[in-house]
Amino acid sequence: MRNTLNPVAGAPAVLASVRKLSNGAATAAQQDWVAAESPLEVRIGGKPTTVLMRTPGHDEELVRGFLFSEGVVSSASGILSIGHVRPSREQTGGSVIEVELAKSRKAPTIDRSFYSNSSCGVCGKKTIASLEVRGAIADNRLQVRRSVLETLPERLRAAQPTFAQTGGVHASALFTAEGEPIAVREDVGRHNALDKLVGWALSEGRIPLSDFILLVSGRVSYELVQKAVVASIPFIAAVGAPSSLAVELAERFKLTLVGFLRPGSMNVYAHEERII
Amino acid sequence: MRNTLNPVAGAPAVLASVRKLSNGAATAAQQDWVAAESPLEVRIGGKPTTVLMRTPGHDEELVRGFLFSEGVVSSASGILSIGHVRPSREQTGGSVIEVELAKSRKAPTIDRSFYSNSSCGVCGKKTIASLEVRGAIADNRLQVRRSVLETLPERLRAAQPTFAQTGGVHASALFTAEGEPIAVREDVGRHNALDKLVGWALSEGRIPLSDFILLVSGRVSYELVQKAVVASIPFIAAVGAPSSLAVELAERFKLTLVGFLRPGSMNVYAHEERII
Repeated sequence: MRNTLNPVAGAPAVLASVRKLSNGAATAAQQDWVAAESPLEVRIGGKPTTVLMRTPGHDEELVRGFLFSEGVVSSASGILSIGHVRPSREQTGGSVIEVELAKSRKAPTIDRSFYSNSSCGVCGKKTIASLEVRGAIADNRLQVRRSVLETLPERLRAAQPTFAQTGGVHASALFTAEGEPIAVREDVGRHNALDKLVGWALSEGRIPLSDFILLVSGRVSYELVQKAVVASIPFIAAVGAPSSLAVELAERFKLTLVGFLRPGSMNVYAHEERII
Repeated sequence: MRNTLNPVAGAPAVLASVRKLSNGAATAAQQDWVAAESPLEVRIGGKPTTVLMRTPGHDEELVRGFLFSEGVVSSASGILSIGHVRPSREQTGGSVIEVELAKSRKAPTIDRSFYSNSSCGVCGKKTIASLEVRGAIADNRLQVRRSVLETLPERLRAAQPTFAQTGGVHASALFTAEGEPIAVREDVGRHNALDKLVGWALSEGRIPLSDFILLVSGRVSYELVQKAVVASIPFIAAVGAPSSLAVELAERFKLTLVGFLRPGSMNVYAHEERII
């Protein structure tokens, strides 16, 4: 068995050869889906600025959301154009996306952000001071019924095609207070899944996302709360555990934070006043 | 209920206030453990160079492993000194670690690595070309019995104190071919857990790690395989799913890659010749 994967451009899953060993027996090598992971080089004004290791698909949304989360643009109009560049000979197994920013954006802002920031919102930063979160959830009066919350993980699972195929991706989804899914995005990186969602919202003119619940399929740490704050999302519910910094930030920025969400049970870590 | 966490310096878990809602009933707010997450600013020669968002504990190992994985040092002797700096007034809720590199290391190497690299091995990099993985698993003849492999997840779980407390950390562990655990490290970031393990091995003079199996508690993507290759680990077993790039890299660098490892079953994605 020798694995030579043949990714289809833009496809979120790839067929790999796998031998399944089960209860003492072994199958012959068979084809099974794995989550696609591949680098996306982001060029701004022709200049390579960062690489996002992501699951292909919704690439433009990913980059829009990333630029917004990092404060490089503050509205949809900050991006003049965005699109894939046709692969050239020097590319080996990756994609390139080219962005033009509106002229009013000053180059130093871009430089500072990109040389010291990165997609997960943490690594690449050089000082603790540079981690400061911008924004706030001011006087948000969203109210969500507990019975609605409990249904969200199942609704998310039903809307996760790549997870069903591969078991290997994270998801971020926006729901209304009535439990209606608005958008779902998947990625091998959980910060990417949220950036795709925020990028979608930016394109659709839906930011601030003050009326929505963000549901994430895994754990919640610093970078997800940070991105939610920038997009004015007042409520994060997670299937997994929160980190201490996620709890602290949620408390401080007035987000509701729910963890270990299951049918029938949940843990509330901050601002439970939005749960009725 | 208002959450004001009081982390104990260096402790991997923190008590948070939580209200548990279960089957229609609600408990009074109670104290429960969450995984600690906190920034560590790394200074090299007095100069702030990167921030690692990590679970406190084994900080020096984390930084040693990070510098090794990123190619800034190639042996233990590349680091002259390493240690925490006493917090000063400008620090707010983070730690600082100071590193002195051996004089033979040239400043440009450090600059290039740090301005364009980061703890997860991807974000912060600016071009796809800069992702190239160094190293190889050459002619490694490790042989592991399938029956031994199947016992590893349970052995890992037994050695994961912070996961047991919080449900919120990843783990990386090294096992011998006979299934004996050599070292286990936990962190909110899976790349950090592996860097801590590699940093430990570097301090103990155990690199190359050619005789060991790496077991990871979650999924396997690009950055974990990359770090394993640099440390010459020939075998990765994961409780979760691999990404497409993890499979490709494992195939190319001759690592055995097992995913979805459970008692009684596993999927083999690359180089099954090491499983007997």
